[in-house]
Amino acid sequence: MLISELSRRSGVPVATIKYYLRERLLPAGAATAATRAEYGERHLARLRLIRALAEAGGLPLASIRRILSAVDDEHLGVHEMLGTAQYALGPAIEVPDDEEWNAARAQIAALIEELGWRVTPYAPALDMLTQALVALRRLGLPATARGLRAYAEAAQALARTEIARIDPSAPRAAMVERTVVATVLYEPVLIALRRLAQENESARAFAATPDKPARPSRPRR
Amino acid sequence: MLISELSRRSGVPVATIKYYLRERLLPAGAATAATRAEYGERHLARLRLIRALAEAGGLPLASIRRILSAVDDEHLGVHEMLGTAQYALGPAIEVPDDEEWNAARAQIAALIEELGWRVTPYAPALDMLTQALVALRRLGLPATARGLRAYAEAAQALARTEIARIDPSAPRAAMVERTVVATVLYEPVLIALRRLAQENESARAFAATPDKPARPSRPRR
Repeated sequence: MLISELSRRSGVPVATIKYYLRERLLPAGAATAATRAEYGERHLARLRLIRALAEAGGLPLASIRRILSAVDDEHLGVHEMLGTAQYALGPAIEVPDDEEWNAARAQIAALIEELGWRVTPYAPALDMLTQALVALRRLGLPATARGLRAYAEAAQALARTEIARIDPSAPRAAMVERTVVATVLYEPVLIALRRLAQENESARAFAATPDKPARPSRPRR
Repeated sequence: MLISELSRRSGVPVATIKYYLRERLLPAGAATAATRAEYGERHLARLRLIRALAEAGGLPLASIRRILSAVDDEHLGVHEMLGTAQYALGPAIEVPDDEEWNAARAQIAALIEELGWRVTPYAPALDMLTQALVALRRLGLPATARGLRAYAEAAQALARTEIARIDPSAPRAAMVERTVVATVLYEPVLIALRRLAQENESARAFAATPDKPARPSRPRR
């Protein structure tokens, strides 16, 4: 297909595609004339992946480049490839390495040991978690081991289903694409549903009068 | 206590306290001389609440003022008071009201009806959820009803415990403080734990060699 069709089918503007070609994020097409090149399905798949990383992941080009290298390096195992993508999502937190931070970190280490989770000490999510625990402690509402465990168990049940859904025989690019999109975009899904669930539970616990029943039902899709 | 002690006990700088006094977010103390005033426990509690809303919630003064009014309005029920605080957290999303948006909204309405949740159509979390569903569909990975339901059920189990922990006989300010802090700061906790759980599940499913067993164990706290 020509670049115009590649643009149409991928939803990525021609100017952006040309930029990716210049930056070598996208391999060159097969030249058919001085100013014409032919692109194939692998270009389309790569564009989808770049778009997912840039739009859903909000990743800068340097991170995208690193992930694409991991996808292209067939010697790298699936776990390491997915890890490269997840770690690239960050967040990059400056670690203060003071007493508060280290105490929260020790609490997390104990939790992870108790759960038997296999995670590296470099996981950016560890910093995200530490930061939240430090903030809770500062505001006088420290997280308890039991409380944290409830969140960890809910997270584990979701993650188990999520990882089980990855097809290990799928192309590497598709696996990374799904993983990054699912990791990033189900975060607001989970957060929003928790807030709605809180509203519902609060209504049941504290609202003086129940909602009027049976508004006209809406069509389902 | 004097303003210096109020500052020390609340962790809020004197200049900030004076600013809150000028903005009438904090009631004036009892004047003991032309330039001296005495503050009490209710000032301390109010400062804690303002600090939680500003630091954990990242809320602007206008939102904080609205929440404080809800706390002070004893005619307002607990559910409405907590709802005022939660809705103030936003996010404020500009609703495009196009076909994609409305389709995602209809999917959410069907889910909420199926779950029997009592939430108003004005909940900002509905917009957050709609935005994520639209993005998933655009990236070619639309959320299924069954998939969403799994996240909703995990959210409901957490929310039930969270709301049950609220003591309805506690002072109104303390209820709002706990709710906002818990809503906001357990979001990164949940997100981080999900990412760590994904890493663990991925290691179990895809890593070629298991981690070396038994590194020297760390002290627990």
